[in-house]
Amino acid sequence: MKICRTIPSLVEAISRAGRQSIGFVPTMGFLHAGHLSLVERCRQENDLAVVSIFVNPSQFGLNEDLDRYPRDLERDSALLEKERVDLLFLPGRADIYPPGYATYVSVDGLDAVLCGASRPGHFRGVATVVLKLFNLVHPQRAYFGQKDAQQAIIICRMVCDLNLPVQIKVLPIVRDRDGLALSSRNIYLSPAERRAARHLPQALTMAADLISRGVQEAAVLKKAMAEEFAKDRLIQVDYIAVTGLQDLVDLTLIQPGNTLIAAAIRVGKTRLIDNLILGDLSC
Amino acid sequence: MKICRTIPSLVEAISRAGRQSIGFVPTMGFLHAGHLSLVERCRQENDLAVVSIFVNPSQFGLNEDLDRYPRDLERDSALLEKERVDLLFLPGRADIYPPGYATYVSVDGLDAVLCGASRPGHFRGVATVVLKLFNLVHPQRAYFGQKDAQQAIIICRMVCDLNLPVQIKVLPIVRDRDGLALSSRNIYLSPAERRAARHLPQALTMAADLISRGVQEAAVLKKAMAEEFAKDRLIQVDYIAVTGLQDLVDLTLIQPGNTLIAAAIRVGKTRLIDNLILGDLSC
Repeated sequence: MKICRTIPSLVEAISRAGRQSIGFVPTMGFLHAGHLSLVERCRQENDLAVVSIFVNPSQFGLNEDLDRYPRDLERDSALLEKERVDLLFLPGRADIYPPGYATYVSVDGLDAVLCGASRPGHFRGVATVVLKLFNLVHPQRAYFGQKDAQQAIIICRMVCDLNLPVQIKVLPIVRDRDGLALSSRNIYLSPAERRAARHLPQALTMAADLISRGVQEAAVLKKAMAEEFAKDRLIQVDYIAVTGLQDLVDLTLIQPGNTLIAAAIRVGKTRLIDNLILGDLSC
Repeated sequence: MKICRTIPSLVEAISRAGRQSIGFVPTMGFLHAGHLSLVERCRQENDLAVVSIFVNPSQFGLNEDLDRYPRDLERDSALLEKERVDLLFLPGRADIYPPGYATYVSVDGLDAVLCGASRPGHFRGVATVVLKLFNLVHPQRAYFGQKDAQQAIIICRMVCDLNLPVQIKVLPIVRDRDGLALSSRNIYLSPAERRAARHLPQALTMAADLISRGVQEAAVLKKAMAEEFAKDRLIQVDYIAVTGLQDLVDLTLIQPGNTLIAAAIRVGKTRLIDNLILGDLSC
């Protein structure tokens, strides 16, 4: 596995790839089985598998966890080597945002709701860094996890709007044995918080059960989920949403093939998200 | 000259170009000798010369001249044919901004000063459409006129920030016999307004004279220009600025190789801009 730490070395490595197909998995590192499922698919579907690790400062708010975001580069490298990744891009902050940096991409409307409502500027940072990485790596295919459903929806919108020649593949959520969606941030949870966190996947499982029994009203689903969250007083609900899958506009009734059911909660200081989709996020 | 009116036909034509070098001149049409100087250079320096004509709605404010912006496609086509342009891209509004379109590029700071102060959103629209066109045409070189100096500076910043593999060439202002910089909007001027408009290039010539005689203070240059504009009561000054060439930050003293002296005036309902640079805008 070749490791590139600067933009010129990456650009040279990519230009050497010639006409091979390039698959790309952008990450913030501290890799878990969710990331690795993306890397594995990337490896299968492309001649060249490229992964980036960059804890992107522009997607963190002022009071968020940029400085304490978990990092373990040695372990990450070993995992990616084992997955037969060809190229690992490890830029520093000044490579991505040099002095005088000023350009940002906004996906209006989509970036202001759900997670965007409590994390202003977050998706602007995500869209910007993903666009930059796409422009450097020139992938034919890029891989994202469904856990960050709003992120995937915003990136699909950006790719379509900006006429980028890349296919976005969104792969299923990978869960721990207790049902919690894998996240680098799960490491923050104390044992009691971890027990509380389980209500997040349980609420979504309950929503799926209600839908399979014929419930269509968003209000009924949201109420059931809120009741699930009320079972543990360590949980603070950020949002519970039932929206269209492309436009993130609230739905009154679920639409088969076009519905996102998503929730964000805080457990202690840790913010957790999870979701259920009726339809396909890839684009 | 091949004419493409849709994105799929353009993408196909560009992909057929293979490894030839592509030069690109994005325009809003109603071409004058300023545009043609860009096209000529584009023709000289590239295997394939591509021009677009698109009156970009996202760069016009609500009370601006989008609907009356001059158009003459037949004449434009004939001029470009004569310049041996290979490909003319003529998209419609819905090709560039389909329903649900949401993605915009901002170049923070640079887009809020000078022309950006009186035209909020203008440069966001410019940056967005230029990025889209670059992503569709994949030029190695793109050509812009120095008359729109702030636009060129913003596009250079965007290209650098977003890691776009395109070289931006900024060519000199082309002037009419009376000194007025060529602009599609000059057609709006009545004879009396046209006479008043001449004070714009005259003010810049005066600034250049003062500099050649050793004046360095921005305040002295701005005062002389303001006095020139005060000679005709048809003129309303929008701004007179002496700034750095990359950051557009006001200078107290001019810096050789790094100064933009720019002005915008209104003559009747028509807004006119002109500038003088010490340095090079290309990037």
